[in-house]
Amino acid sequence: MDQRTEIASLGEFGLIDHLTQHIDIKNASSLLGVGDDGAVIDHFGRQTVVSTDLLIEGIHFDLSYTPLKHLGYKAVVVNLSDIYAMNAVPTQILLSIGFSNRYSVEALDEFYAGVYAACEAYQVDLVGGDTSSSQKGFIISVTAIGEVAPDQYVKRSGAQVNDLICVSGELGSAFLGLTLLEREKKIFQETGAQPDLEGQTNIVGRLLKPEARKDIVEFFSESNIVPTSMIDVSDGLSSDILHICKQSNVGCVLHEEKFPFNPEAKEFAYKLQLDPTACALSGGEDYELLFTVAQSDYEKIKVNPSISVIGYIAPESEGNHLITRAGNKHALVAQGWNHAR
Amino acid sequence: MDQRTEIASLGEFGLIDHLTQHIDIKNASSLLGVGDDGAVIDHFGRQTVVSTDLLIEGIHFDLSYTPLKHLGYKAVVVNLSDIYAMNAVPTQILLSIGFSNRYSVEALDEFYAGVYAACEAYQVDLVGGDTSSSQKGFIISVTAIGEVAPDQYVKRSGAQVNDLICVSGELGSAFLGLTLLEREKKIFQETGAQPDLEGQTNIVGRLLKPEARKDIVEFFSESNIVPTSMIDVSDGLSSDILHICKQSNVGCVLHEEKFPFNPEAKEFAYKLQLDPTACALSGGEDYELLFTVAQSDYEKIKVNPSISVIGYIAPESEGNHLITRAGNKHALVAQGWNHAR
Repeated sequence: MDQRTEIASLGEFGLIDHLTQHIDIKNASSLLGVGDDGAVIDHFGRQTVVSTDLLIEGIHFDLSYTPLKHLGYKAVVVNLSDIYAMNAVPTQILLSIGFSNRYSVEALDEFYAGVYAACEAYQVDLVGGDTSSSQKGFIISVTAIGEVAPDQYVKRSGAQVNDLICVSGELGSAFLGLTLLEREKKIFQETGAQPDLEGQTNIVGRLLKPEARKDIVEFFSESNIVPTSMIDVSDGLSSDILHICKQSNVGCVLHEEKFPFNPEAKEFAYKLQLDPTACALSGGEDYELLFTVAQSDYEKIKVNPSISVIGYIAPESEGNHLITRAGNKHALVAQGWNHAR
Repeated sequence: MDQRTEIASLGEFGLIDHLTQHIDIKNASSLLGVGDDGAVIDHFGRQTVVSTDLLIEGIHFDLSYTPLKHLGYKAVVVNLSDIYAMNAVPTQILLSIGFSNRYSVEALDEFYAGVYAACEAYQVDLVGGDTSSSQKGFIISVTAIGEVAPDQYVKRSGAQVNDLICVSGELGSAFLGLTLLEREKKIFQETGAQPDLEGQTNIVGRLLKPEARKDIVEFFSESNIVPTSMIDVSDGLSSDILHICKQSNVGCVLHEEKFPFNPEAKEFAYKLQLDPTACALSGGEDYELLFTVAQSDYEKIKVNPSISVIGYIAPESEGNHLITRAGNKHALVAQGWNHAR
């Protein structure tokens, strides 16, 4: 090891590509491996989808404003969101935690109360895990397992030119919640003033207690829709649509005027002199489903008030663009999460 | 949260019991949940076994004497060992890592070289994972997935009175390796003297690069043996046989004279004035398979030179005992791993 390459020079996705580039699949049951929201495993009649996340205190969450119960709920939900993003239904989770000796049994009980509330809400079973002490901070690892009918799983790589780009729910709210909580934390640290969260329950809730879009995957099943590609919005719309475009070898056009916002969140953004569109593009943690469907599915999609059509897939040669309300055309750039930065 | 109960007051297994006591299984596919080496999920014709481990620098491993490549190999192998301990064959893993900015890409490459070497040796596929920065230290979470023919999985809870207690390979070596490396580390810190590992490749190798007993599970399959209970020896023979006894509602009698030792390891133990039997009982990390079989399987078992019969299952009312070489009878006590202590 004479050479030293800084991890930051590759970025998160570059690092993953680097570390996994030589993987050679050995089992016929490994239908889909690294590089999507989940992996797909064949099990003779059904297919299994698995996904895993590692959450570390100080990196992914701040316990100074995150109640442990909410943290437990969210740790489960963000993993289930990955399973839904494969068009599968989650059935089991495994949960490992590491904690320093500043935690009491009561604190862990709070955390687990949130975990079990999520298991109840999404009807999944906690079937395994590991507990450990840590030298510093709280560490959470969740693996989620789900089922999908044969070959109904949806990858990031299936988007076709002229497909419609759709998103569920509202965008940018979680980022605004984070901005508010970080601001109030700073004020509290500087002045001791108690947080003023008056009227901001939507955005704070979206950050601290997100929900996964079970209803959208159920709607697909009932309406006989199989999206051509899908991802959950965890890194921000911009990063996530670029994942789809890169893996599908296509380009895209997004229309700013079609972006779905919560009115309360939008108003709060203006109050902070933030652009709601920028929050949607770069904020992340919305856990909405971003997917593409064939134009022929438009009639089926439009009946669902939770789904917005926000653009369309273009040829790769045309690049990835946003058309603003004013009609200007901007290139989309990945601005999502990069912990290594 | 007015009350504060120290986690140490429950211990690791008490804590797990406490946190999981109210689990209510919702999916018929969740055949076996928390409380064994792995969980079992039904997949219409085959059954899936899953297991997960969280490994934290400073708690589970010491990078001052653990090469990153060995660490990658071991992180995979200890999870595969859990899958084998369910009598299943591992097929896929998911791997998440968290690392601080003191790590370079080259360091992660070393770690992954070990991961891929283990995947190759055991023919499993790395199908997913997560990468993250950490505030401190290296964090590893591995989830392993395996397959087993319907209802051939082996739990900890099936041991019957008069069953034979068997163990694969040799016991206590990994603990002796740890003792040696800790001693050399201390000498190095105090005097700057380079480690003297001359002639101790067996015990050091057993600690740093353990193997999972794939061969034993293959032998079971070829010989039509289904153990009545099984666990892998990770916490020490004493703790692990007590898991089987507690979950099977039985007692046990172990015979010290039957314990399998590596001659080199035994000699080294005496040099350090350690009792090899104590190393086997309390050491842990051997990753051998500890299992029980019906007496009628004795003829099948005895042909395998890697398997030792070390005792038998007794009625629960008779308790758990060790008969020493001198013929004395001692009660077995759990002395395994307790990070919270």
